[in-house]
Amino acid sequence: MSTTQTQRKFEGWAAMDENSVKGQMKWTEYEPKEFADDDVELEVQYCGICGSDLHTMSNGWGSAKDMYPQVVGHEIVGKVVRVGKDVKHLKEGDVAGVGAQCDSCLECDSCKKGEENYCSKGIVGTYCAKFSRTSSGSKSYGGYANFWRGPAHFTLPIPSNIDPAEAAPMMCGGVTVFAPLKQYGAGTTAKDVGVVGIGGLGHFAVLFATAMGANVTAISHSHKKDEDAKKLGAKKVIVTGDDVKAAFKGHERSLDLIIVSSNAPNMPFDAYLSLLRPHGHLVIVGVAEEGSLPNVHPFNLIMSNVHISGSLIGSVKDIAECLKFAGDHNIKAWVKRYPMKDANEAVVSMKAGDARYRYVLVNEEHGGKMNA
Amino acid sequence: MSTTQTQRKFEGWAAMDENSVKGQMKWTEYEPKEFADDDVELEVQYCGICGSDLHTMSNGWGSAKDMYPQVVGHEIVGKVVRVGKDVKHLKEGDVAGVGAQCDSCLECDSCKKGEENYCSKGIVGTYCAKFSRTSSGSKSYGGYANFWRGPAHFTLPIPSNIDPAEAAPMMCGGVTVFAPLKQYGAGTTAKDVGVVGIGGLGHFAVLFATAMGANVTAISHSHKKDEDAKKLGAKKVIVTGDDVKAAFKGHERSLDLIIVSSNAPNMPFDAYLSLLRPHGHLVIVGVAEEGSLPNVHPFNLIMSNVHISGSLIGSVKDIAECLKFAGDHNIKAWVKRYPMKDANEAVVSMKAGDARYRYVLVNEEHGGKMNA
Repeated sequence: MSTTQTQRKFEGWAAMDENSVKGQMKWTEYEPKEFADDDVELEVQYCGICGSDLHTMSNGWGSAKDMYPQVVGHEIVGKVVRVGKDVKHLKEGDVAGVGAQCDSCLECDSCKKGEENYCSKGIVGTYCAKFSRTSSGSKSYGGYANFWRGPAHFTLPIPSNIDPAEAAPMMCGGVTVFAPLKQYGAGTTAKDVGVVGIGGLGHFAVLFATAMGANVTAISHSHKKDEDAKKLGAKKVIVTGDDVKAAFKGHERSLDLIIVSSNAPNMPFDAYLSLLRPHGHLVIVGVAEEGSLPNVHPFNLIMSNVHISGSLIGSVKDIAECLKFAGDHNIKAWVKRYPMKDANEAVVSMKAGDARYRYVLVNEEHGGKMNA
Repeated sequence: MSTTQTQRKFEGWAAMDENSVKGQMKWTEYEPKEFADDDVELEVQYCGICGSDLHTMSNGWGSAKDMYPQVVGHEIVGKVVRVGKDVKHLKEGDVAGVGAQCDSCLECDSCKKGEENYCSKGIVGTYCAKFSRTSSGSKSYGGYANFWRGPAHFTLPIPSNIDPAEAAPMMCGGVTVFAPLKQYGAGTTAKDVGVVGIGGLGHFAVLFATAMGANVTAISHSHKKDEDAKKLGAKKVIVTGDDVKAAFKGHERSLDLIIVSSNAPNMPFDAYLSLLRPHGHLVIVGVAEEGSLPNVHPFNLIMSNVHISGSLIGSVKDIAECLKFAGDHNIKAWVKRYPMKDANEAVVSMKAGDARYRYVLVNEEHGGKMNA
């Protein structure tokens, strides 16, 4: 172990309380987990800003109250600068990334099947969580920072045919929609795919589903994003407006799969279900801060044998496939780059809903590039 | 056309208003649909009493208000006594049955695929519905009656290796659980199957799932039916009682498929979901009179990639498979027989929840037998 490795100083944008989301994160030094033999360390070059970052900073999901200070960010790409002795698949100098999950038990049925994202002991989030498999009790810190340290199992090499700045938001946002599109056969068994909500996740869903060969229908509350949806690949846009029944008339049973990427409250799930063909799937990937499914009447599930389910980020394998697919199909994420120093400004803009459609923080000190 | 055919007098137990369910049905003559070339006529020998009969008579689902007088009953078995000239698969003298659906468009994608129960134009129920494909506008009348007339497409021969009195409740109740058990791989991909509610549907679900080779867990609100569940084949009984979280502790992620056959209000769906392994399915086949899914938080769908869906009765093919399966596996439905003349008494007892687990009305005048 070299001197520089042991002396590396971890600093990042810390959220100190619920107001941090209003542009009040503070650049702060912190202590990462103890370095384990199966850990790696990255010089952060890029970190995407994910909706979850904001929900967590503001304690909107109610799980982060006792976890301040937090350093959020779980769409991390950077240069490998330290490799534990048990790590085989990465070496110093590689460009690698980690997504929203940075650890799991690695022992349960789900983990053994390569579905670490459904670990029966629960996942360890890349920020605002506690490690248990190694460095038990240590808090996880994310990528609005200069360095990241964590389990190599969840750290993947970034393919060379993809811009690492665009790979960053795929580590969480991209794979979160890629995984269910793949699971439910977008473009194959599910030829007609609907995407509810054209935002950070939705923009990826339209891009990926289109590249998979599906006919994509964008479903949006207003006309604001009609043009964008079409540019992203949507064949059709349905604007729900204030009268969802009228808006959906004539579109009943026209879709095989719907990805609900919006996290708006009181979404008209019953109406969405009416768009599905028998045996179709509605998959929720966005969660409102106040959530339940009061708008679903069991009759609407029964009458056409349709399914409501959810999908959580993606496994390590899913992320690898997502990156490969994006590289092979030349998927261009719509990314706006902010210098790492302007993280507060970027968060405030994201919170205001201005993103079209992902923001990425760039750490030029570690080789991140402000231009593609 | 012989004289007897044209002069056959249709009579049945008519529900005149919402109070009929309290034992006030009246034996009444009525006019069936016009006989079409693809219709058949049955002498009713047996008619099961289904929970839906009671919901419909009492207008509990809110769809029957303008449909009195009704003659309910959609688990009908009897002797074929008239066959339209276009009917190939039945002849006079056959023992045949019809379930909860007696017509559909026969043209849409679902119908063409042999999934008439998900017809895009909606199904025509065996009672309390209006025909449209033939005899447009005529009301459908069910099997608490001396005769039944309707489309042969939905009328199936009863295999000879099954007691026709036991076949009757399989035409609706049986196939309603058989179809999703088959669809979701009970005994094969779904080794561990839960059945919520040990009632008319639930008793069939335990019988069928066990015969399919699944390990069945009965999930019941009270201990009242523990013994019955075990006799039906359940390996395990979980009683939810008043503290469902405590009851389910240690059983998390232990099931692949849950059939919710109860129609109790305010079922703890979130807790049921906790019993599912990742990718598992919870399938609703019973509908409460006041229904929505307020107790489902999307997080619980997302965190383990589980599905909520519904299943509606079964297709013609499903019913045929269900009957064949029941005959081949010697499934013994728990049936109590009532003489047709005592239909009011049987309905009142059913409404009181006394059935263990299906009642069948027997028309001895047409050859129905009060003993197995």
